[in-house]
Amino acid sequence: MISGFTADRVECWAVEGVGEAHLGDDLGSMLRPALEAAGGLRPWDIVVVTHKIVSKAEGRVVPLEEVRPGAEARALAARVQADPRLVEVILGESRRVVRAGPGVLVTETRHGLVCANAGVDRSNVGGGEVVTCLPVDPDGSAARLRRAWLPLVGAGPLGVMICDTFGRPFREGGVNVAVGLAGLPGLSDHRGIVDPHGYTLRASTLASADEIAGLAELVMGKVAGRPVAVVRGLRWHGQGRGASELQREAGRDLFRQ
Amino acid sequence: MISGFTADRVECWAVEGVGEAHLGDDLGSMLRPALEAAGGLRPWDIVVVTHKIVSKAEGRVVPLEEVRPGAEARALAARVQADPRLVEVILGESRRVVRAGPGVLVTETRHGLVCANAGVDRSNVGGGEVVTCLPVDPDGSAARLRRAWLPLVGAGPLGVMICDTFGRPFREGGVNVAVGLAGLPGLSDHRGIVDPHGYTLRASTLASADEIAGLAELVMGKVAGRPVAVVRGLRWHGQGRGASELQREAGRDLFRQ
Repeated sequence: MISGFTADRVECWAVEGVGEAHLGDDLGSMLRPALEAAGGLRPWDIVVVTHKIVSKAEGRVVPLEEVRPGAEARALAARVQADPRLVEVILGESRRVVRAGPGVLVTETRHGLVCANAGVDRSNVGGGEVVTCLPVDPDGSAARLRRAWLPLVGAGPLGVMICDTFGRPFREGGVNVAVGLAGLPGLSDHRGIVDPHGYTLRASTLASADEIAGLAELVMGKVAGRPVAVVRGLRWHGQGRGASELQREAGRDLFRQ
Repeated sequence: MISGFTADRVECWAVEGVGEAHLGDDLGSMLRPALEAAGGLRPWDIVVVTHKIVSKAEGRVVPLEEVRPGAEARALAARVQADPRLVEVILGESRRVVRAGPGVLVTETRHGLVCANAGVDRSNVGGGEVVTCLPVDPDGSAARLRRAWLPLVGAGPLGVMICDTFGRPFREGGVNVAVGLAGLPGLSDHRGIVDPHGYTLRASTLASADEIAGLAELVMGKVAGRPVAVVRGLRWHGQGRGASELQREAGRDLFRQ
């Protein structure tokens, strides 16, 4: 295996007692008591953190009443039947619009993520007039949390993931995906490995980090106020290049052309 | 919640000692000793089975040397630079071609799944000249396995899922998804639920079954010969409508138009 994950048994649990985050909070210190109360961390653990709590601590919250939509946002808002102030924020987060239709705006964010509304979210933020954007540098945010928690596991390894829930083409329902990574790879790359029948595997790169994010969502729930989960039982090779290795380049994507 | 899953802690392990499947095998009986050796089953367990072992038992294996490609398959094969016999099999499994390019053929299967090569797979089948198709009725296959295993858990509940690994637009790496379901829903539907701040959640339907499938892949590995995993710790409301509830209708899909 070039990089990637192995496991015989995987466990995941939600970390209880995580409070609300506010601008300037030192999340690493703030979450440590809750992590310890949930049984602490061990080497090879992966801590999965919902982006929203990170975004709030980093001040990525915009009161809509302060937004003055420009001409592009007003025109696009009319086309997709959305609040022009929300569309202004979305465009500010985006490199390009991938699809726009009634009630739907799919863009490519400055990180290279393709998702609805550039990941800008009105729910769960303390009122309908405030929106939360994705962290500016989710890998960097994950790395800061990892540095804060690494002493809990000695020398590690320790993985930290920041996640968000994305819709997707072809299939109903959102799934949690990895938008920031530190200390662990995003992909399991089995290319070139020969299967038990001597046949070389072809399309055998797996988005293991996204599967780990999905697992975390199963225990986080959507409204239970559980923004942190711990995943135990995985081992991995390689460090990867951060969450960007999970992003397909536009030129290689049949559905962005 | 209208339907869906809740959990505080989730565990998943691979079932060891599952042999190869062959045409006509009674998978339910055949896998029971391995399930019991792996600790047995309890109510609320979910057994996840890779489609390939089901397809083999159901005879969904085609020797390529027996395939005579027609004119449509030959023309499309030239366009995507693939084996015309393979393309003939793919077209036979498909309602329509969604995207075709060099080395890539994305179709909508007769089930309504959108995936590369209609889920037809050449690897792991005992030689490069044989291809495996998806089960004809994966929900039905899951229901048969569930009936065979339900006595192990008394009255249940018991979930059985058949899975496959699909690529996806925008993101690198395949992820495991649910293609057949029995005894459990595919989606967690939180629409209409009010979050702790009094804001009604909007895009809050989650593809929990796909997240469970992804979890199972983490312990199955790609070449370890572990086609079965058990997931424990989830509870669910509702039975759902089978795996088709995870499939977006073409008319509602911005990326199939």
